[in-house]
Amino acid sequence: MRALWLREGRLALREVPAPEPGPGEALIRVILAGICNTDLELVRGYYPMDGIPGHEFVGRVEAARWAPEWVGRRVAGEINLVCGACNACRAGRRSHCEERTVLGIRGRHGAFAERLVLPFENLHAVPEGVSDEAAVFTEPLAAAAHVREQVPIDRGDRVVVVGDGKLGQLVARALRLAGCDLLVIGRHAAKLATLPAGVCSLNVAHAALPAERSADVVVECTGNEQGLAIALRLVRPRGQLVLKSTYRGEARLDASRVVVDEIGLVGSRCGPFAPALQLLQRGEVDVRPLVHARYPLSGALDAFDHAARPGVLKVLIEP
Amino acid sequence: MRALWLREGRLALREVPAPEPGPGEALIRVILAGICNTDLELVRGYYPMDGIPGHEFVGRVEAARWAPEWVGRRVAGEINLVCGACNACRAGRRSHCEERTVLGIRGRHGAFAERLVLPFENLHAVPEGVSDEAAVFTEPLAAAAHVREQVPIDRGDRVVVVGDGKLGQLVARALRLAGCDLLVIGRHAAKLATLPAGVCSLNVAHAALPAERSADVVVECTGNEQGLAIALRLVRPRGQLVLKSTYRGEARLDASRVVVDEIGLVGSRCGPFAPALQLLQRGEVDVRPLVHARYPLSGALDAFDHAARPGVLKVLIEP
Repeated sequence: MRALWLREGRLALREVPAPEPGPGEALIRVILAGICNTDLELVRGYYPMDGIPGHEFVGRVEAARWAPEWVGRRVAGEINLVCGACNACRAGRRSHCEERTVLGIRGRHGAFAERLVLPFENLHAVPEGVSDEAAVFTEPLAAAAHVREQVPIDRGDRVVVVGDGKLGQLVARALRLAGCDLLVIGRHAAKLATLPAGVCSLNVAHAALPAERSADVVVECTGNEQGLAIALRLVRPRGQLVLKSTYRGEARLDASRVVVDEIGLVGSRCGPFAPALQLLQRGEVDVRPLVHARYPLSGALDAFDHAARPGVLKVLIEP
Repeated sequence: MRALWLREGRLALREVPAPEPGPGEALIRVILAGICNTDLELVRGYYPMDGIPGHEFVGRVEAARWAPEWVGRRVAGEINLVCGACNACRAGRRSHCEERTVLGIRGRHGAFAERLVLPFENLHAVPEGVSDEAAVFTEPLAAAAHVREQVPIDRGDRVVVVGDGKLGQLVARALRLAGCDLLVIGRHAAKLATLPAGVCSLNVAHAALPAERSADVVVECTGNEQGLAIALRLVRPRGQLVLKSTYRGEARLDASRVVVDEIGLVGSRCGPFAPALQLLQRGEVDVRPLVHARYPLSGALDAFDHAARPGVLKVLIEP
């Protein structure tokens, strides 16, 4: 089959053998796959990789010898493949399995290919009414909605999302359902204009930041270390700062500010798929405005170039 | 009266007018005052100051026109002077009052003087059985015990305190009462030997750090930015990292590690005095081994030099 391969920071299309599902695994034909900032960071060397990237996808089960009822179903798939036996798994922190592989990121070929393999326990059937273009957002929307599981957000709370990119857009869409007073800070007029009704926006290219220490909760989604400094400036004493961005290198942190103002920071990675699929099914989150381009797998290199351009949101690859 | 004055990083003994208590305030003769790392950092320029430092003290109320029942009582005093009217005060976060002054740190002369003034609402009577040398630790012990209010620590949890200095010693004494599996990491054999029975210690000058990601909770008490990197290395996925150190400048933070492992960080400053006084009264925390020297106020400059030497724990000033 054809696949996009990443090695030493270089992407190339390759012809590779189709993956073989092992016991408990399904073979899935990829319908659509999304390019995430993590993919762009992998190309920049955030994490050494030699394999097929891609962890956001919707597909159809083609073969499922161990659970034939899955054949033909349209699915999204959780990306952490866990051992079930390590300390973290036994303590109920399965997404932090010490032995995990991660689809398209670590030890497991991903979705920028015609086919992929995942265990049945990772699969979620996509409901009828959810389009392919929406279903491909299940993974990043689950990660966005996870913020609400980690930090209590109440009606009327002042919440700031720093970053108007793909992740910030999804986080804003998930958090606005809490009824909070929501502001997204970015530097791209077109991206900010993509936000749904009821979400305020502020373009730092043209306007000053809000008052220091004015937000109850700040979610850092910029993908760079400047975002952390802005987020820390905005959060109030005893407020919560949620970190969503992964990027290469270290950030500077005013640790004394964190101590004196007793600020809470928490990292946030993946979230559960079932609530994310419900948000899509009920139409509570509309992801359509986020799709900026679709490319066939043969154009995957162009797709990556496109996705890396400033101002661009989601670029999809259609194998 | 005589007082130690800090201005532009220089300490000097001065003759100054005795403070005048305003309405709702008591005049207190200082019996003993402790030198804290924050005081040493203030001298190093952590925060611009022009006044009398010192925020750890035990004293006796000399004058209390508005509440004469306080006269003659031995007291410890909370250090945040709050307005009661700002957003933070009204939200119940009084120690984060937006208009606060802080004894010996910001806008309010402190305890390295013969006398100081504090509002009655800040005062706590010191119980009979608590010695002056123990009572002077009320403020830092309250700050240490505050960690347990912020982060749940259960019997058997693996907890690491990074830093064997004054703060680390008190944090260890407070946390060991939770019945957790407690390890203090430091680099001074004599300080580590001062830890109470039942607390394990590790000297990084002679031994390797514990396994990465092995601690449920890590409390950073080193007073420098290297401590944060060690603490982050030791905390497990979804574990808690408590920051207690204030110091000048910024620390480097591996933000991607925080995100991927969904680590929680929380800053921790002051704590309530009543539980700290109870710990001292019941003898559950023994602070006597921490006192390394006592100086008269006339020797305050020598006391500061002494307190800044490596390996030295608490130095007290006796006005």
